[in-house]
Amino acid sequence: MSKIMRFSREYKKEDTIIEVKNTKIGGKFFALAAGPCAVESEDQYFETARLVRESGANIIRGSVYKPRTSPYSFQGIGSEGLKIIRDLGEELGVTTETEVLDVRDIPKVAEHVDILRVGARNMQNFSLLKALARVDNPIILKRGLSATIKEWLLAAEYLMQQGKENIILCERGIRTFEPSTRNTLDLVAVPLLKHKTHLPVIVDPSHGTGRPELILPASKAAVAIGAHGLLIEVHRNPEEALSDKDQALTPNQFHELVQAINPLLAMEGKRVIG
Amino acid sequence: MSKIMRFSREYKKEDTIIEVKNTKIGGKFFALAAGPCAVESEDQYFETARLVRESGANIIRGSVYKPRTSPYSFQGIGSEGLKIIRDLGEELGVTTETEVLDVRDIPKVAEHVDILRVGARNMQNFSLLKALARVDNPIILKRGLSATIKEWLLAAEYLMQQGKENIILCERGIRTFEPSTRNTLDLVAVPLLKHKTHLPVIVDPSHGTGRPELILPASKAAVAIGAHGLLIEVHRNPEEALSDKDQALTPNQFHELVQAINPLLAMEGKRVIG
Amino acid sequence: MSKIMRFSREYKKEDTIIEVKNTKIGGKFFALAAGPCAVESEDQYFETARLVRESGANIIRGSVYKPRTSPYSFQGIGSEGLKIIRDLGEELGVTTETEVLDVRDIPKVAEHVDILRVGARNMQNFSLLKALARVDNPIILKRGLSATIKEWLLAAEYLMQQGKENIILCERGIRTFEPSTRNTLDLVAVPLLKHKTHLPVIVDPSHGTGRPELILPASKAAVAIGAHGLLIEVHRNPEEALSDKDQALTPNQFHELVQAINPLLAMEGKRVIG
Amino acid sequence: MSKIMRFSREYKKEDTIIEVKNTKIGGKFFALAAGPCAVESEDQYFETARLVRESGANIIRGSVYKPRTSPYSFQGIGSEGLKIIRDLGEELGVTTETEVLDVRDIPKVAEHVDILRVGARNMQNFSLLKALARVDNPIILKRGLSATIKEWLLAAEYLMQQGKENIILCERGIRTFEPSTRNTLDLVAVPLLKHKTHLPVIVDPSHGTGRPELILPASKAAVAIGAHGLLIEVHRNPEEALSDKDQALTPNQFHELVQAINPLLAMEGKRVIG
Repeated sequence: MSKIMRFSREYKKEDTIIEVKNTKIGGKFFALAAGPCAVESEDQYFETARLVRESGANIIRGSVYKPRTSPYSFQGIGSEGLKIIRDLGEELGVTTETEVLDVRDIPKVAEHVDILRVGARNMQNFSLLKALARVDNPIILKRGLSATIKEWLLAAEYLMQQGKENIILCERGIRTFEPSTRNTLDLVAVPLLKHKTHLPVIVDPSHGTGRPELILPASKAAVAIGAHGLLIEVHRNPEEALSDKDQALTPNQFHELVQAINPLLAMEGKRVIG
Repeated sequence: MSKIMRFSREYKKEDTIIEVKNTKIGGKFFALAAGPCAVESEDQYFETARLVRESGANIIRGSVYKPRTSPYSFQGIGSEGLKIIRDLGEELGVTTETEVLDVRDIPKVAEHVDILRVGARNMQNFSLLKALARVDNPIILKRGLSATIKEWLLAAEYLMQQGKENIILCERGIRTFEPSTRNTLDLVAVPLLKHKTHLPVIVDPSHGTGRPELILPASKAAVAIGAHGLLIEVHRNPEEALSDKDQALTPNQFHELVQAINPLLAMEGKRVIG
Repeated sequence: MSKIMRFSREYKKEDTIIEVKNTKIGGKFFALAAGPCAVESEDQYFETARLVRESGANIIRGSVYKPRTSPYSFQGIGSEGLKIIRDLGEELGVTTETEVLDVRDIPKVAEHVDILRVGARNMQNFSLLKALARVDNPIILKRGLSATIKEWLLAAEYLMQQGKENIILCERGIRTFEPSTRNTLDLVAVPLLKHKTHLPVIVDPSHGTGRPELILPASKAAVAIGAHGLLIEVHRNPEEALSDKDQALTPNQFHELVQAINPLLAMEGKRVIG
Repeated sequence: MSKIMRFSREYKKEDTIIEVKNTKIGGKFFALAAGPCAVESEDQYFETARLVRESGANIIRGSVYKPRTSPYSFQGIGSEGLKIIRDLGEELGVTTETEVLDVRDIPKVAEHVDILRVGARNMQNFSLLKALARVDNPIILKRGLSATIKEWLLAAEYLMQQGKENIILCERGIRTFEPSTRNTLDLVAVPLLKHKTHLPVIVDPSHGTGRPELILPASKAAVAIGAHGLLIEVHRNPEEALSDKDQALTPNQFHELVQAINPLLAMEGKRVIG
């Protein structure tokens, strides 16, 4: 890589701080994103969002298009759900995010939702990345299941090559031989990335561990190691969740998690706004 | 997986044999697909195609859209190249294949090229798979870099769920810790898949090894272990190739490879037609 | 590695051919090693040995010390079994092999058994390797579960550094994310090694796949890709085996396997003697 | 695993606290082990030990037998070094640890050094484990390069099966596809293990990352995620180190690290004694 990459500290020395709606992400601004894996209904989404918001979340997560391993699993409620997300964002005055899977959906998703997410399976879906490079919304770019740090940063470069800068990297665990966790959360990737890039790096301990009892300690470690945020699946009733029910926290568990990370955030001089 | 999957031997006992143009793939019919990584020009593509055809190839490979790790690498000549492929198919009366990356390109690719290929990085690009499920052309579905056998078959199921059956699985190596080959070619996946599915399974030793000197022995092993075909990168002058130049065979090396596998094909009762 | 390594083709150009008892291994001489995972009793070992010998095996495998994941699993019959192996070697006039786990056992194992095996878990047990470097018997050095080719060759160098040359490398599968086989058999390692080293390379498809129905096709591929031998677990009655019962072949299955690889051996100009 | 394992919380509910010399490890007692990769000379070892002790280390690490990938790399100063370790332990009144590689060395190592370490490459060297089960000294059992959590715990069971309880598990990174760190540090293994076992779990960020700039943040994360200790390589002059020079901290860097983790230790209610 002799060319100076736009993601690099050589290109831009200081941390990128992304402003979106009423929040900021990057530098000392911490993203505490939480919500259901999938938007299942207005009722389920709004209730969960309100509860995580009360506990301190400043971004509400929730997917309407679900990339599922099997075609016979719940595929999300689709574009109908975008209006629900927009309504929530307006009613609660909170920043929202959702995953985008298909280039043809980008305009309407970008119109209804604040932050767009590229999932692990699409990290090297280059036609999706090229189309997203022309969108104003911030993008969360999840690490691919077996993507190296270099490949991940080059995927970010696809988004940035025309000047876009509001990219958030999200470590969500990599695929290894270990069967007792869903993925192996590569927390050391956080400080490694911070040496290489000015972009914010957040951590998804829900996919990174796949086990509710590990999400709180993993979140503490993520803060201590320097992450700029967390992305956490919470469901008002995990047992009834239509996807990822085995890794969703209850609203109470999320509340405990926030209590547990707050002193660490203070120690790191980080704060959650919006 | 309590539901009977369309890819499974429970759903269909006998081997699927795919008929396309003047060739067949599956059962005792062997696909010998060869050609350049990328269609760089009419001259380069036609010359390479003629040479591999003379050596025995029955399908000509060549990409016009290139999914590259870096946005600053050669991205393929794009849709302009589709006409070149169609011309070659007509002039030589040979079956052609190319990769499709973007749902919006599907109609024109399907019109110009015989077989459509889904690359490793798109194996779980479910919106691409859903769109391809509605196309008549056969699809080569490459295994994802770290896809399990089960995930790969479920990706095939996305293509098959509305009745499509002409799917070809392509083992192209998986990502492991070993640095001395580009990927680790999982040849045992071939007989494993043959127990689980009626679909043809071919092998790509070019990406599977990344080293020209290993492609011939890997191809022999692929035939001996029961593969239904090979997908091999050949360039008329590998040193000048715009992509994958380190793993392309010369036309002469490809000729030797065909000579080396012919007795094994005879032993297995397999034949190359078209 | 600027020093010229003794394992390398720079150090010695031509293939090493190991002579042991009445057989040879390397170059055009193929090792067909078969027998039970563990020597359970004289009766079980002799009967299985006779059957695989009749089918064409020229080396009888069988462990008396078993490295088991759990301390509560069968640990082998221990040093008592060495005499059984020696008796078989004498009575059948056949070459024998067994695993050695402990430096203190080396003298007695070397006295009773023809070939000593270092298991995957001990590939980097350097004190064991250093002690084995002073033994006359040939050594089978299995690849570690996650050993790179370079590390494996350097482990061989530990055995060779004082002049010992009769080392046989054994590919037995590496650890990856794929759960449907016990390990991922890296068959491409065979031609890769043949470029780098003059030492013979054999393949263990029993541990490499862990599934009886995959052992025959994997063995065919191993021969086609250039292996100098096979190491296969066979039990007179797999269901009663005290270890590895799920991957042992029956004597009949082994007989079929030999029939299936014989034409390939002929094609490769390889022969089994002794 | 229907049998109740001695490592398990079913066997013993409360955390094991290991007392050794003037320190304790486990529960709320934190092991801060530091020192050179290898004992190179009395001068180098004593100076480094004094410096890390001043910064707060309560255990001094240092190997005299070195398991090196190449036989031509520095193999350690051998048994001569044991007396140096004993002298340091007496002079500074500090707890010492070192690696043991060979069953024949166990008695003299156990006599001279407080804590014995089993390296990653020997985690499944079962003859070494069986011999160590009969030693009184505490054992640090490092995780194998590609060992699952289950295999690791069963290796601990080999040490414990005759009643020994003073075992310390040490996470040191696993082997994955990622080339930018020496290993992938599996920090989530710490809380996972704490659910499964009463044994203390420490973290080695030196091998886990292989890069000095990542060791401090990884250490903070290790404390935050609940580790019972750290094992860190420090050399008085890393550039002159005979092994692992690329990952050794300077004494000053170690001092900074201790300052950085102290508030986290206080927050977790952990303390370093001895």
